[in-house]
Amino acid sequence: MALPTPLHGVIPPVCTPLDPRGQVDTVSLAHLVDHLIDGGVHGLFALGSTSEVAYLTDAQRATALEAVLKAADGRVPVLAGAIDTTTPRVLDHARTAAGLGADALVATAPFYTRTHPREIAAHFRHLRTAVDLPLLAYDIPTAVHSKLAPALVRELAEDGTLAGLKDSSGDEGSLRRLIVALGGRTGRRTGPAPGFAILTGSELTADAALLAGADGIVPGLGNVDPAGYVRLYDAARSGDWERAAAEQERLAALFSMVDTGPESEMGRSSSALGAFKAALHLLGVIKRGTTAFPQLPLSGESVREVGRLLTEAGLTPPQGDHRSG
Amino acid sequence: MALPTPLHGVIPPVCTPLDPRGQVDTVSLAHLVDHLIDGGVHGLFALGSTSEVAYLTDAQRATALEAVLKAADGRVPVLAGAIDTTTPRVLDHARTAAGLGADALVATAPFYTRTHPREIAAHFRHLRTAVDLPLLAYDIPTAVHSKLAPALVRELAEDGTLAGLKDSSGDEGSLRRLIVALGGRTGRRTGPAPGFAILTGSELTADAALLAGADGIVPGLGNVDPAGYVRLYDAARSGDWERAAAEQERLAALFSMVDTGPESEMGRSSSALGAFKAALHLLGVIKRGTTAFPQLPLSGESVREVGRLLTEAGLTPPQGDHRSG
Amino acid sequence: MALPTPLHGVIPPVCTPLDPRGQVDTVSLAHLVDHLIDGGVHGLFALGSTSEVAYLTDAQRATALEAVLKAADGRVPVLAGAIDTTTPRVLDHARTAAGLGADALVATAPFYTRTHPREIAAHFRHLRTAVDLPLLAYDIPTAVHSKLAPALVRELAEDGTLAGLKDSSGDEGSLRRLIVALGGRTGRRTGPAPGFAILTGSELTADAALLAGADGIVPGLGNVDPAGYVRLYDAARSGDWERAAAEQERLAALFSMVDTGPESEMGRSSSALGAFKAALHLLGVIKRGTTAFPQLPLSGESVREVGRLLTEAGLTPPQGDHRSG
Amino acid sequence: MALPTPLHGVIPPVCTPLDPRGQVDTVSLAHLVDHLIDGGVHGLFALGSTSEVAYLTDAQRATALEAVLKAADGRVPVLAGAIDTTTPRVLDHARTAAGLGADALVATAPFYTRTHPREIAAHFRHLRTAVDLPLLAYDIPTAVHSKLAPALVRELAEDGTLAGLKDSSGDEGSLRRLIVALGGRTGRRTGPAPGFAILTGSELTADAALLAGADGIVPGLGNVDPAGYVRLYDAARSGDWERAAAEQERLAALFSMVDTGPESEMGRSSSALGAFKAALHLLGVIKRGTTAFPQLPLSGESVREVGRLLTEAGLTPPQGDHRSG
Repeated sequence: MALPTPLHGVIPPVCTPLDPRGQVDTVSLAHLVDHLIDGGVHGLFALGSTSEVAYLTDAQRATALEAVLKAADGRVPVLAGAIDTTTPRVLDHARTAAGLGADALVATAPFYTRTHPREIAAHFRHLRTAVDLPLLAYDIPTAVHSKLAPALVRELAEDGTLAGLKDSSGDEGSLRRLIVALGGRTGRRTGPAPGFAILTGSELTADAALLAGADGIVPGLGNVDPAGYVRLYDAARSGDWERAAAEQERLAALFSMVDTGPESEMGRSSSALGAFKAALHLLGVIKRGTTAFPQLPLSGESVREVGRLLTEAGLTPPQGDHRSG
Repeated sequence: MALPTPLHGVIPPVCTPLDPRGQVDTVSLAHLVDHLIDGGVHGLFALGSTSEVAYLTDAQRATALEAVLKAADGRVPVLAGAIDTTTPRVLDHARTAAGLGADALVATAPFYTRTHPREIAAHFRHLRTAVDLPLLAYDIPTAVHSKLAPALVRELAEDGTLAGLKDSSGDEGSLRRLIVALGGRTGRRTGPAPGFAILTGSELTADAALLAGADGIVPGLGNVDPAGYVRLYDAARSGDWERAAAEQERLAALFSMVDTGPESEMGRSSSALGAFKAALHLLGVIKRGTTAFPQLPLSGESVREVGRLLTEAGLTPPQGDHRSG
Repeated sequence: MALPTPLHGVIPPVCTPLDPRGQVDTVSLAHLVDHLIDGGVHGLFALGSTSEVAYLTDAQRATALEAVLKAADGRVPVLAGAIDTTTPRVLDHARTAAGLGADALVATAPFYTRTHPREIAAHFRHLRTAVDLPLLAYDIPTAVHSKLAPALVRELAEDGTLAGLKDSSGDEGSLRRLIVALGGRTGRRTGPAPGFAILTGSELTADAALLAGADGIVPGLGNVDPAGYVRLYDAARSGDWERAAAEQERLAALFSMVDTGPESEMGRSSSALGAFKAALHLLGVIKRGTTAFPQLPLSGESVREVGRLLTEAGLTPPQGDHRSG
Repeated sequence: MALPTPLHGVIPPVCTPLDPRGQVDTVSLAHLVDHLIDGGVHGLFALGSTSEVAYLTDAQRATALEAVLKAADGRVPVLAGAIDTTTPRVLDHARTAAGLGADALVATAPFYTRTHPREIAAHFRHLRTAVDLPLLAYDIPTAVHSKLAPALVRELAEDGTLAGLKDSSGDEGSLRRLIVALGGRTGRRTGPAPGFAILTGSELTADAALLAGADGIVPGLGNVDPAGYVRLYDAARSGDWERAAAEQERLAALFSMVDTGPESEMGRSSSALGAFKAALHLLGVIKRGTTAFPQLPLSGESVREVGRLLTEAGLTPPQGDHRSG
């Protein structure tokens, strides 16, 4: 399906439920997609960092993307991450995703290597040329250890290489400068890159990003509470910033689930993804909270703390849920 | 004078004008203080990073602080940075500032050394005990290369060590989490640290920080356009977030003056502080744009670009100004 | 073939020559393998960082490894890099390499993700269990952005998970501490991990690493001058440290070829790998100096500078070489 | 006194013993100087990082430097650190040190600020011009968060700005390249900067640095075992590299005292400096192991572990020592 222009709204990076052997649990994944679409989201982002894309084999990536596409069934657009070290490897993923029917691609700058901004620009341009799908740049310095400069993104926006930016840099000042460069809150639609979508991946400052002029949100926590992020988005769109901020604050309290796994004992990927999946399991959306190897599992105590935070945020598991199914 | 509880509003870090020999130009500094207070600011922060505190000798620091205090003359509270590597050295600065009549102290975590969070906590506690002035923590990882964890700030807020936080980390998500932990936008005044002030040093996301629940702004760019930041603050306080965001956007465009000095040719301190001072000179507030050694000066072309940005932002130099004085 | 115990000597990471379309030039790769073995090297490391592994598709990786194995033809052991983000993906590469007949595997810690040392340990243990080949840890913080702690490597050496370490961290102090912990220069063979091989990937301090007690060298520059590194190694083994240092110094001068591509214009991967390949082309070993996309090519001027450095180091292209073949 | 040309040998950074109130214990400091000179060292470096310079007030710095100069009494040259954020502040320290009679100055690049290499060059040039003492650059990225590029050091060596480099970067490859650029192991004395001294601050690779062509060593651990480092140096000078490496290995085992304070409980400064001082106290050289605030003290258990390592390294406290004095 064609992307809306610009792409906007709440577009969660979809968690990838796993079975006990570490394989993709496509039944749970279909439940999760329904949970998200029922929550009112405007799109889905498969094979992102929150999807544990870095832990999935090529076969598992294809399985997961196929399951998301099938479950979404055209109800909302599906973006697919094509995440790998450099252009030739990213291209392989991009072609697979295009073949499976993804509606757009999301790619980072090269990583593992030491790459110049001119090379990063060439990377995105080549991807755009080689695969006929809208391309979003994924700015995630905690993973790839370089930051996409606003000037570079602007150049690739203006020449049509990029259809949008998924900004997980946490650098809201930099995002502000990009928005201003592209015409600002009110002028961006008629500016130098009129259809360019700016999406924030920051769960805790979605209200701020929307106030600054972003088009949408890609919140990992949106797996757990899609309706909450949709309420936040709707409040912002209607100009009710106090309500957007109040909703953001509730979600920020809920987000502290990512700290229930102690930093001294497990990686930050494990604690965050483990918490999201534990919450989805507690809410009856997926069959188990298993994360991919070599991530360590949350302790029982941590899972109980996740449950407590769900309750505090007003999210309660259904009676007679299908978790034990 | 006693600080308001909590400290709030626009509190610019005051630039330190220099004469051709690199000494503090106290006449220009007094003009600058008037310019800021005339602009409506609620307080002044002397001897901060934007004040080039790291470039000022002890004697120059005293001269600058004295000049700011004298020019402010009790009209607004004056915070003084006590910036040095570790507690014993910071204490020397803190005692000098207290002796000169500063209303509050601002200190960073230790730098140059490799210091544990427990040691950082001891650092702030000792400073608070040894000098009888309200103490604000200054979180500025680009300078000190460590980040104050929200949990640590919270602990020091709740036990009364800190009267506030000046957050220049650029990590708005972390700031959000701190605000939530202290009771949130509406509950913070009755929360575990009711008088604790949260101030953002981020020039580009002041609207967002206020929306999230911050009490005030410490913008370096506020030297150049104090009235603009006061308008932004007032709009936010009155709940007119659209107007706050529009003002923020205008200021974000103006802020791009910090890039007129090319990154390939000068340090980021030089280009930012050089631009602020060039603008103040063009606006007739200070006598010259000189920055401290070894910072390289902006080129004539860069200064002209600063002038162009001032005009675009609606700031024009007075006719017959005193610059040539 | 079985690895020597411990693995030792000069084991260059083999460059991957490319044709104009970016595909593996297996004829040139076979020439290169002959060049290396003729130079006296003790082993080959295929699919390492210098092999541009991060730029090769899975198909290209298999082609390159197969070509190296075929050309080596059992004359020296062939180590294969299994480089990917996390355990499940690394396993896919490891199984392919084992199937093609590699003699050992080389794997990094997970990257892109944020992984705890306990998870890194589990990663290596699982790889070792799942594939029946000796496993070397590849410590390369510039690529994976974490450092393997000596204590962790020691633990994995002592329990038999690791057959060796390829240390490209540049942290010679840390390497020293590991060697000491494992019994030291003289006691390491009878220490807690008697067959454990310590290899340095640092081209510029190979003499120092051997003096400290390392077993071997994995120098990218060894592609260009394998015989030089073998002379260095032999001098060290015979206790002639002055000769080893003199050879190292000549090689250090040659190494400056990695700076002929200016840092302002291309990534550090491009300039280093481009220089090695340009040198191999000038020496008549491979058909062209092409590097993988999106790396930018060296300029003609840079290539001439590489040639000048070759001459200065006493390396001259053969008359009537096969380059134009 | 005039410095030897080039400065060479073992030049420990002298610890600063403190009394219970945190003031400089000049009696212990004099004992320590005797201990070092008795151990055969070739010079002393006062007010370096290991001297806790970042924790000493200006008054304490002067006291410590004066005590070292008085105790040394011209027997060996005394270098003085002039450590502060930027040129104007460093100058104040440099002038004090010159006035007290220091034989040379040691300064880092600016820190806290964001400074361009051209500005760093201007910094060193201005220091050299303003104070008539030989100037050494102190390359310590863990403290100042920038690395002095070999090309920059070379430029400042060749134009006579710098008399030497104290390299605490841990980047031995970079050091090698600098040595090669200056003429190499044998040609450096007649090269472009003939009297330029290259000193390594790396305790664990002193043998390697000397093999590469360094002139001397500035080892923090040299406070504890000066004679050991002198033996290492003498062995290297006589070309007995096996003996140098064996001595280095013994010292590397002793160095593990810096890990007796657990990383989870105290800063790396505290554990390293605490261990050196605990060892000096156990050896009867200084009256107590106190470190400066806010560094946390080593536990009794950690101190006992330091004692065990001393014994293992063949260092035993004298009977009837003056520690209880």
